[in-house]
Amino acid sequence: MRQRGVIAFSSGNHAQGVALAARMHGIACVIVMPADAPKLKIDNTRALGAEVVLYDRENEDRDAIGADLAASRGLTLIRPFDDAQVIAGQGTVGLEIAAQAQADGIEAADVIVCCGGGGLTAGMALALEARAPGLKVRPAEPAGFDDTARSLKSGRIERNSRLGGSLCDAIITPQPGNMTFPINARLCGPGLVVSDDEAREAMVLAYNRLKIVVEPGGAVALAAALFRRDEIEGDSVIAVCSGGNVDPHVFSAALSRFGHV
Amino acid sequence: MRQRGVIAFSSGNHAQGVALAARMHGIACVIVMPADAPKLKIDNTRALGAEVVLYDRENEDRDAIGADLAASRGLTLIRPFDDAQVIAGQGTVGLEIAAQAQADGIEAADVIVCCGGGGLTAGMALALEARAPGLKVRPAEPAGFDDTARSLKSGRIERNSRLGGSLCDAIITPQPGNMTFPINARLCGPGLVVSDDEAREAMVLAYNRLKIVVEPGGAVALAAALFRRDEIEGDSVIAVCSGGNVDPHVFSAALSRFGHV
Repeated sequence: MRQRGVIAFSSGNHAQGVALAARMHGIACVIVMPADAPKLKIDNTRALGAEVVLYDRENEDRDAIGADLAASRGLTLIRPFDDAQVIAGQGTVGLEIAAQAQADGIEAADVIVCCGGGGLTAGMALALEARAPGLKVRPAEPAGFDDTARSLKSGRIERNSRLGGSLCDAIITPQPGNMTFPINARLCGPGLVVSDDEAREAMVLAYNRLKIVVEPGGAVALAAALFRRDEIEGDSVIAVCSGGNVDPHVFSAALSRFGHV
Repeated sequence: MRQRGVIAFSSGNHAQGVALAARMHGIACVIVMPADAPKLKIDNTRALGAEVVLYDRENEDRDAIGADLAASRGLTLIRPFDDAQVIAGQGTVGLEIAAQAQADGIEAADVIVCCGGGGLTAGMALALEARAPGLKVRPAEPAGFDDTARSLKSGRIERNSRLGGSLCDAIITPQPGNMTFPINARLCGPGLVVSDDEAREAMVLAYNRLKIVVEPGGAVALAAALFRRDEIEGDSVIAVCSGGNVDPHVFSAALSRFGHV
């Protein structure tokens, strides 16, 4: 069967963005998603009309699965970060930050962003280079999956030893992208690394004070802003919260542990 | 002791708005709040620099407490809903809705809003009368505390039999305001009433899909939009979510009950 449509990998909210766009355009959509993704994310993606294909993050190669599906069904493959248009789209976050910082008179700041393959990071870094060069992007990652922080430090692409098993499932990738890393190496400040518990506590703080639902991986930048103050230079800190696909039992467990105000 | 400052009653987010404004102006702020308010709300209000005075909702008269404090300390009393400036301020929600509806080409809709004393309802109704007269305000209340719905039906101010003990603490008032009710009687459609469980389920839906934290009382309008479809006339429905002060154990209990997607 060949059909007009797209196929995409899940990397955070990328999957749901693709599924929504496909529905708006009335074309088929297949999302290749790790089997350990939050049930809420799988269900939300299906609710948007996409077909979800699950794979084993530690033992299967999603690139091969994607290539097979794309070839056999004639779908267009959309990579989660090593794609110029994806990077450009995510860069709009940087445009918004530049405009808001200018409105508030902020000319220098650390802009912390959750980082998986580095697409959002690269897009923001490019946008800020053009619009607000005093705003420096700082990628944030969970401990054990700090491939970008280590790569930025060594100057070459470093790989994570583990491929799964993180609380911050949405931003776990084996290594920085071939397209994103050179951009990030040129433009970003040092990476910041937080523990899973720090991500949980930031998630609860977002609940308590910001009244937004952020998944653990989406809260690592906020966690870095709160718990890595000694590694942050400027007086102004901007943190990006991105992604709210957190299963209720994970959220409740964090609330019961860190929710005592 | 006499001091320059304000005193206000807690009615949903009113307390925190007043506390924030007082801090911005560098003046004293006392908030009179029922002792059964969520701990999170009490703590968040104190974190904004306000002094919090607790009272027993069922056995003490908050108006008397407020009048005493205002007189003895020389503070300016800000009523939660029967105040023209408070109504006007809350009416800005109506201005925003009118602008957004116009941008989306919506000329007729039911605009459902959580209703306690009726200040937000009245402000929105006045704003929509001026800017988008095809948008009809529908007050939403929790079952057992439907004083506005009953008052709108009978045409005169009706009182709740119970004064406390609701999940939706922020929007519990004994009866509609003397200033707000005539406005709402002239401009609003019939009131909508939802159960506590429907409010909980709407709160979980806001978590799952909208990724915002809404307290039960703030979710009654969303609940009415979801569960009172047979009482809603138009094709377009607009629901206001307002207030995110929900204690973690209440939120977790609702997630475990309704969070299975």
